[in-house]
Amino acid sequence: MKITIIGAGNVGYHLSQRLVEVGHVVPQIFSRQTNKAVRISRIIRANPIDNISSLQDNSNLYIIAVKDDAITSVAEKMRKRLPGNTWVVHTSGSTPSTVLAPHFNNFGIFYPLQTFSINRMADFLNIPILVDANKELMRNKLFQLAETVSPKVHFINDEQRAKVHVNAVMVNNFTNHLYSIAEDIMRKEELPMEVLIPLIQETSKKVALYPAREMQTGPAIRGDDATIQRHLEFLNGYKNYKKVYEMMTESLKKMHNSQHPSS
Amino acid sequence: MKITIIGAGNVGYHLSQRLVEVGHVVPQIFSRQTNKAVRISRIIRANPIDNISSLQDNSNLYIIAVKDDAITSVAEKMRKRLPGNTWVVHTSGSTPSTVLAPHFNNFGIFYPLQTFSINRMADFLNIPILVDANKELMRNKLFQLAETVSPKVHFINDEQRAKVHVNAVMVNNFTNHLYSIAEDIMRKEELPMEVLIPLIQETSKKVALYPAREMQTGPAIRGDDATIQRHLEFLNGYKNYKKVYEMMTESLKKMHNSQHPSS
Repeated sequence: MKITIIGAGNVGYHLSQRLVEVGHVVPQIFSRQTNKAVRISRIIRANPIDNISSLQDNSNLYIIAVKDDAITSVAEKMRKRLPGNTWVVHTSGSTPSTVLAPHFNNFGIFYPLQTFSINRMADFLNIPILVDANKELMRNKLFQLAETVSPKVHFINDEQRAKVHVNAVMVNNFTNHLYSIAEDIMRKEELPMEVLIPLIQETSKKVALYPAREMQTGPAIRGDDATIQRHLEFLNGYKNYKKVYEMMTESLKKMHNSQHPSS
Repeated sequence: MKITIIGAGNVGYHLSQRLVEVGHVVPQIFSRQTNKAVRISRIIRANPIDNISSLQDNSNLYIIAVKDDAITSVAEKMRKRLPGNTWVVHTSGSTPSTVLAPHFNNFGIFYPLQTFSINRMADFLNIPILVDANKELMRNKLFQLAETVSPKVHFINDEQRAKVHVNAVMVNNFTNHLYSIAEDIMRKEELPMEVLIPLIQETSKKVALYPAREMQTGPAIRGDDATIQRHLEFLNGYKNYKKVYEMMTESLKKMHNSQHPSS
């Protein structure tokens, strides 16, 4: 397929490379920041553009991979260069596909569920792609396209994707925040963060193999209140983190002592 | 060295195998549950015992790897079979080494900082061992012993280890709880948990390479209150998890908008 990429941030950077790698053509890649468009265009041999008005209208698909709050304004500008029946998708986990509806008749989602960084290789064989579209034909074509990029493709509609995104926040944003808390405390206490890294990695490996709930350990679920008290006393020096500790401990106890863990 | 292991749970099971693997001798391994002592004794060719009164007194070191709340009573029973100057350590992250002081003159810690499961191989090349003892000679011998088991050995005293343990709870117990929350919501919403696994694993890989704080993403730190509101509305169906979401979001904002993230 001929696929134009709008956005050369973390997602655009990696996704455009993967598309070219598996045989698709990316004729143009857009970024407001010229240097970003140029950097990736050299790798994928696309034409870098830094103005939407330079968009050509002959691609099979346009993938918008910009920040959530820019999707609508970008789509609006794109519509001035492209016919209304152009196929347009965005890559966001949290924005509904329907924000594209005012501008295009054929719209959808192409959401690679992973945290991307420019400096880190993206392993698309292990990146789920969640797709959807408002028309059956486009929906199926997007699925086929996604299958050329990753073996893990799912139809997930806007409502479902919003729910998946809440949980992505839980397991990525919040987990990383717990890592940051540990990092901060270890640094201030002059202890080596590296002693915690194998534990972090083993914890994340186990969840791929066993239900997390069954793997749960720690003072909160074994009712070891003496240890919890010692931890809380230490955390008096870290008021914000103490709140996190108290609340997570409470939530853990609720989940493991109750038949209705979520209420 | 000749090392007797008291306890055949997750830690005793893996640590005793590793000690034998690197050339030490484990003459006896104790478990209250006979079948557990027998199971591991077959692998490491130790004599299984299910009664502390069967302990022989000719080992160089006795490692207590039982649950925290059993350490004191086990040490008390051991003292009836062993001289007061016997070298005794325990493997706990949260219990001070000094709980052994009423019973033995030479006591310390041998704490492998990892989450162990019987069914999962333990990679000791990647498991930090935190050691300490109340006497200089024993302290150094324990360090040398630990170095035969793992390349990652640290002297960490009781006070430091208590701090490390708080952070182990943060990055293991609480992280795993976030995984459990996601698992529960995904199951109830009939969505496949597997789409979140690569994200979980990438998040944990990044923290080994970059400061977690600098890697932080998500609606909380980009001030995307519209997304946060949508998430909170969805979580009205999950009151307990909604509290976790609110508190983690608040803590994230505090850390990233303030010069004093912990207060």
